[in-house]
Amino acid sequence: MIALAILELDLLRIVDTAIGEDLGMGDVTTDSLIDPDWQAEGSILAKEPGVLAGLPVAQAVFRRVDPSIRFEPKIADGERIRPGDIIGLVTGSANTILKAERCALNFMQRLSGVATLTRLMVDAVGEIPVRVTETRKTTPGLRALEKYAVRIGGGHNHRHNLADGVLIKDNHLEAMAAAGFGLPEAVRRARQRASHMVQIEIEITSLDQIEDALEAGPDWILLDNMSPDLMREAVSRVAGRAKVEASGGITLDKVRAVAESGVDLISSGALTHSYKALDISLELSYRPSK
Amino acid sequence: MIALAILELDLLRIVDTAIGEDLGMGDVTTDSLIDPDWQAEGSILAKEPGVLAGLPVAQAVFRRVDPSIRFEPKIADGERIRPGDIIGLVTGSANTILKAERCALNFMQRLSGVATLTRLMVDAVGEIPVRVTETRKTTPGLRALEKYAVRIGGGHNHRHNLADGVLIKDNHLEAMAAAGFGLPEAVRRARQRASHMVQIEIEITSLDQIEDALEAGPDWILLDNMSPDLMREAVSRVAGRAKVEASGGITLDKVRAVAESGVDLISSGALTHSYKALDISLELSYRPSK
Amino acid sequence: MIALAILELDLLRIVDTAIGEDLGMGDVTTDSLIDPDWQAEGSILAKEPGVLAGLPVAQAVFRRVDPSIRFEPKIADGERIRPGDIIGLVTGSANTILKAERCALNFMQRLSGVATLTRLMVDAVGEIPVRVTETRKTTPGLRALEKYAVRIGGGHNHRHNLADGVLIKDNHLEAMAAAGFGLPEAVRRARQRASHMVQIEIEITSLDQIEDALEAGPDWILLDNMSPDLMREAVSRVAGRAKVEASGGITLDKVRAVAESGVDLISSGALTHSYKALDISLELSYRPSK
Amino acid sequence: MIALAILELDLLRIVDTAIGEDLGMGDVTTDSLIDPDWQAEGSILAKEPGVLAGLPVAQAVFRRVDPSIRFEPKIADGERIRPGDIIGLVTGSANTILKAERCALNFMQRLSGVATLTRLMVDAVGEIPVRVTETRKTTPGLRALEKYAVRIGGGHNHRHNLADGVLIKDNHLEAMAAAGFGLPEAVRRARQRASHMVQIEIEITSLDQIEDALEAGPDWILLDNMSPDLMREAVSRVAGRAKVEASGGITLDKVRAVAESGVDLISSGALTHSYKALDISLELSYRPSK
Amino acid sequence: MIALAILELDLLRIVDTAIGEDLGMGDVTTDSLIDPDWQAEGSILAKEPGVLAGLPVAQAVFRRVDPSIRFEPKIADGERIRPGDIIGLVTGSANTILKAERCALNFMQRLSGVATLTRLMVDAVGEIPVRVTETRKTTPGLRALEKYAVRIGGGHNHRHNLADGVLIKDNHLEAMAAAGFGLPEAVRRARQRASHMVQIEIEITSLDQIEDALEAGPDWILLDNMSPDLMREAVSRVAGRAKVEASGGITLDKVRAVAESGVDLISSGALTHSYKALDISLELSYRPSK
Amino acid sequence: MIALAILELDLLRIVDTAIGEDLGMGDVTTDSLIDPDWQAEGSILAKEPGVLAGLPVAQAVFRRVDPSIRFEPKIADGERIRPGDIIGLVTGSANTILKAERCALNFMQRLSGVATLTRLMVDAVGEIPVRVTETRKTTPGLRALEKYAVRIGGGHNHRHNLADGVLIKDNHLEAMAAAGFGLPEAVRRARQRASHMVQIEIEITSLDQIEDALEAGPDWILLDNMSPDLMREAVSRVAGRAKVEASGGITLDKVRAVAESGVDLISSGALTHSYKALDISLELSYRPSK
Repeated sequence: MIALAILELDLLRIVDTAIGEDLGMGDVTTDSLIDPDWQAEGSILAKEPGVLAGLPVAQAVFRRVDPSIRFEPKIADGERIRPGDIIGLVTGSANTILKAERCALNFMQRLSGVATLTRLMVDAVGEIPVRVTETRKTTPGLRALEKYAVRIGGGHNHRHNLADGVLIKDNHLEAMAAAGFGLPEAVRRARQRASHMVQIEIEITSLDQIEDALEAGPDWILLDNMSPDLMREAVSRVAGRAKVEASGGITLDKVRAVAESGVDLISSGALTHSYKALDISLELSYRPSK
Repeated sequence: MIALAILELDLLRIVDTAIGEDLGMGDVTTDSLIDPDWQAEGSILAKEPGVLAGLPVAQAVFRRVDPSIRFEPKIADGERIRPGDIIGLVTGSANTILKAERCALNFMQRLSGVATLTRLMVDAVGEIPVRVTETRKTTPGLRALEKYAVRIGGGHNHRHNLADGVLIKDNHLEAMAAAGFGLPEAVRRARQRASHMVQIEIEITSLDQIEDALEAGPDWILLDNMSPDLMREAVSRVAGRAKVEASGGITLDKVRAVAESGVDLISSGALTHSYKALDISLELSYRPSK
Repeated sequence: MIALAILELDLLRIVDTAIGEDLGMGDVTTDSLIDPDWQAEGSILAKEPGVLAGLPVAQAVFRRVDPSIRFEPKIADGERIRPGDIIGLVTGSANTILKAERCALNFMQRLSGVATLTRLMVDAVGEIPVRVTETRKTTPGLRALEKYAVRIGGGHNHRHNLADGVLIKDNHLEAMAAAGFGLPEAVRRARQRASHMVQIEIEITSLDQIEDALEAGPDWILLDNMSPDLMREAVSRVAGRAKVEASGGITLDKVRAVAESGVDLISSGALTHSYKALDISLELSYRPSK
Repeated sequence: MIALAILELDLLRIVDTAIGEDLGMGDVTTDSLIDPDWQAEGSILAKEPGVLAGLPVAQAVFRRVDPSIRFEPKIADGERIRPGDIIGLVTGSANTILKAERCALNFMQRLSGVATLTRLMVDAVGEIPVRVTETRKTTPGLRALEKYAVRIGGGHNHRHNLADGVLIKDNHLEAMAAAGFGLPEAVRRARQRASHMVQIEIEITSLDQIEDALEAGPDWILLDNMSPDLMREAVSRVAGRAKVEASGGITLDKVRAVAESGVDLISSGALTHSYKALDISLELSYRPSK
Repeated sequence: MIALAILELDLLRIVDTAIGEDLGMGDVTTDSLIDPDWQAEGSILAKEPGVLAGLPVAQAVFRRVDPSIRFEPKIADGERIRPGDIIGLVTGSANTILKAERCALNFMQRLSGVATLTRLMVDAVGEIPVRVTETRKTTPGLRALEKYAVRIGGGHNHRHNLADGVLIKDNHLEAMAAAGFGLPEAVRRARQRASHMVQIEIEITSLDQIEDALEAGPDWILLDNMSPDLMREAVSRVAGRAKVEASGGITLDKVRAVAESGVDLISSGALTHSYKALDISLELSYRPSK
Repeated sequence: MIALAILELDLLRIVDTAIGEDLGMGDVTTDSLIDPDWQAEGSILAKEPGVLAGLPVAQAVFRRVDPSIRFEPKIADGERIRPGDIIGLVTGSANTILKAERCALNFMQRLSGVATLTRLMVDAVGEIPVRVTETRKTTPGLRALEKYAVRIGGGHNHRHNLADGVLIKDNHLEAMAAAGFGLPEAVRRARQRASHMVQIEIEITSLDQIEDALEAGPDWILLDNMSPDLMREAVSRVAGRAKVEASGGITLDKVRAVAESGVDLISSGALTHSYKALDISLELSYRPSK
């Protein structure tokens, strides 16, 4: 089982914000028309094929809008869905189900979108032993949820944030040169400052940076925006002296070629910044009130 | 000038959450390597063509990370950008510019993505006098920002939330039938409950619902998921007795045909749930410290 | 049933703030004297005649102070109360009932004050088909609750806030003149900017502004601070070309005359800024501990 | 000078909540019509006689809506105002002044209402050396501000909350009897539990409770809902063995008689639960933009 | 029973902050290895002798991390513990118990440290009728909890904060001199401004200040940093005209001598700023899953 | 320079909480006696020898209480202080300096206590190349600040929280056995789940666990509560196949012996749970008002 891995408190803050945005000072339509006592059953339906993700978030939405709503998933996060599949059943007050609907669906549609795209990339990579991860280009406010969706889709996670991994990039290199010190000193300083549990990675953009970078003793080398051919050459030159990550412009149609270059990890911003929300809907049927 | 129209407080909460997600307990790489006193200038560069949106949000990110960073836009929100354009200049401490970079770009890339797609739809509609709006399928937590991006892209906004507009949908209709009352009573109840400044809209999915709906006296009729031909027929039957909105599966390639059907407003969920983030980057150049 | 129409989250923030203000670092008297295990029953008693409002807020206070307190209303919000009426029974720990008492009563006394004054105005208006609403002069922090109390008292609500209705006032008119544009252009701009679901209202202070205002095509005309006679004349001149609202200095003794002028809606700031809290108290009787 | 005595943080939370309530997702009227660059000057005008209170709160409202608004009070909190008096001048962007207006006035009108009623009571008491204070019947969320308004009006403050004063009331007495202990033990327990800096008060409702109460050794005796005659008798029986507070149904027309009974302090719930907001308005005049 | 005397809301904020700090974006070790369904029983064990404090806080930690964890204390707050004692049993999901463990123990260890040191001081004072209290030198963010631990250890509490007691210190005296007024005027002003339920204390640092101080009529005199001999002399000179507090550098080895000087109250900053956390641990034993 | 490495937002929340605790509803003493316009200069003085830490936190306290207070440090964080040293000067309103004083000192005293103890341990280790770190036994709410103080004292930091490092402990081992899998599988699972930038550590309590642990391929072995002799033997057996951490009961008098055992890192809970606050005070001198 893949844990959501977000503090309940943080999940509720995200969910409450979304509910607040959508409900504002109340659902005037529903409150005008639908008696709080009327009971209903809703089916959450897949309208497109993909990989499901977001059940615990939808669950939280229903619970926050009305703790007496019962949400019973029929399909688990990570499973494939096809148009017409019943993802889950929602029973309770018609009034509050209608209020929670859009918000619950918004989360599921987006997270399933991320999981679906991740699964496509992971499947494209196939048997090649390489990790597929997201980058830091996540939706502001939803990073933890999108990282969960990546795991659900079969991917792995990169570092959470700037505190738990050292990644020395182009801009850092330039600054260091200005200050008169190079990569070996940079890696030395970073190891000194960072926790002993953190690894160190250096980003390079051309093959001729490889030897300098390796000399500094990083745990990882990141190849930025290289062609698969260049990556293969880079992997061959690194020759096991560090692990190798590929990043920059990784899309579904390129990911297999990148994987074949022999890198250890592929990170793709597209997983979280350019996925398509999966179409999922809710259909209510009313039941005689109790 | 198009106002951002979000409370400073709410903007800061969004921005601070994003910064918190990305910085966590500090940027260990930058703090290890880059002295807070080193000055730098960064150019924010367009890498793809589109419509720019998000400057005041990026502005807020820089201000929250370090109030002494100066951000000087060279292009205004709403203008078209081409690859290589300098969107703006950022000057200040290299250390804090690097910390703010990803977060500022994440907002600009996404909001520009929304504005770009909106502009494409609005341009496709061309001279036809019809509004293009988003729906409630916005990114949880970012609704106000995405609505701003829609306006920036030349679109209009639909209601903010469930409190400031009455929209009687399928599920409401079914519930009302169960309770033994129909559309006329529903509209009467909604008018009674809602503020006198709010308008009333009824969603229909087939032509034979039109007369019933109109009899109830709504301000708007929403045509859900109809073909352009059906819409044209619907508009003709409504014959000015209410305004008409088209919704459901509106994509860029369909929007012109929908507009030609004579509807007054087109709402598209895709504007906010399936846009592609625009590629925008930051390039630093260091300056001798003062 | 009239819904409270406030997010649970927002209600709890209001209630928690009130509890925090009153309890601070603990009720030193009660904690010194009353064992948490001692059980009690409290009767909430009406001491003045009026209309009851605030039960769900009092309910929330008791639940937040101690979820095991049972609060059983005997009279519903909106019903008339007379001195001596038992509004509800509270049973549970004497210690925590005493801590919640003042806070729960403070809400009920005020909201019942608003509902009572509203009911008096609505009754004064009697059979005349005109809405009575509050204005934006609500108690800071309690707007949603006071709007609920207005509905409970038989009134209607005006717009929630500045985002969900266009009201062009004196000060706007003066600014527009300075900018060289008048009411028609103002209404055009507002319609362009606002959601299509929002209506537009123009405030006028003298009869000679009527024709100009109507020419701009608003949905509503607001007559500010006019005598009933002037209002009757205004209504006659508007002649159905827009709906008409009366506002400014509306008090209980004037409201009937205003209603008779033929306006469609009367808004009164007094409903929320100058009501008198209704006297309501709690009387405890102790029960042998379980 | 009388300090506001509220944490900046708490003041901002109150002010921000009020602004959020009123502005919601933006002032659609003002943003449609008034360019942010247009400059204006507003006069805050008294429309009714009374005592001014609330300047620092209004100040905070303007600052939070737009830090570049300049608010220059012409009259100080605590001074008397007459209709037509210019309370202060507000200069800056017409757009943001209009957004802040209602919210700033709401605070000033209410706090001036409290200060005015307090001043009336204090003046009625005149030369008699007795304190006039509010009770805990304050507006939920605004206690600190209303206590400030009471001080501004010449009154004093009772305890802030249940933590910083011991007040043994009717309901406590009954509970103590059930537990088999009386006032002397109650006072002993309270002194033991409470900080040594806190005083102890006992509420009594009839004269025959006086000796029992005094025997317990309280610092204060509270006479609840007694007639001035009974109070005079009570004061005479207490004979200086404790200080004496009068409470319960204290209104402006009764306060002098109560004061003459010889009590040391008079607390009145009406000061904060049944004041009338003072009429104060803002009149804008536009200035050519800079 | 000694009440925790903190608002549930404030307790949860403290506890949630602590959980957030420790869990961050999830316990990657436990989530990798321990299935959420595996059940376990944990024993909370004393490893050092002392006085237990903090059960309700630990309780809250477990509840917030996982409401289904059952925590059953075997020893009550305030009881003495010896190495090996089972303080309580924790049963539930092994996964979530492991996540809550460190955080729950951190609170118990620290609060027990405060209670233990307080108990040692109170026992040292023995039969002498003098209060032992903490000062305002509490851990930022944990004041209410540490004050509870002091009470649990047999001590009393000083004022909560600067609002609920008047303490005129050295620095105030100097300022008053500059302004041309002395202690009598200072006490007069403080009595005038403060609630009538608050007492007034004057800090002195040498014997020759006593008469001046007493003349001003305070309720308490605070002897700052005096030797026990000087204190005895001070007490004798005060001669009952005010209560006397001793403060400044009070440690366990000095407290008896200070108590013998005849003061009424001893306040010690060391109780909360220099206690040693008590060693307490959790030992898990796994149980076959249900 | 050592960065504080905490989000401004999080620092302010900590500081505001502390100010709120201490000021409550205002400093009644200071507001009664000290005019806000009176200017003063305060010297912050060391009263004990140690290592200074906490300047940016004290800075934030002064800024939050009154942005016009000027705080000018004379000694930098990390420098040694001796009794009588002037740590910094504070100039501004006497009124607000007095309000901020205790709160600013509370932070500096505690953080200097942590830095001082860390420095003592680091100096005791001397030339031996071993890191000294804190553990997760930090003060609830103050983890980031205490970690900063450890760095200031010459120490290093362990992982921030449970998300950014894998540490398999005793309790995990027992659970894994129950589930039928051992260390190799545990490490495999953890590597699979955790980010590739995270290292993996295994805790052992006896020498005979070493080979099993190493076989699983961790990056680090943690020796829990072993004597220096056992540690030396463990280091020799590990023989460079992993890095080695010593933990459990590390105190100042033992740390040198532990370091001599050859471990790579020593983590000590005492650094943050049993330090002594350093004595630091503020002395005001008044200056004629401007």
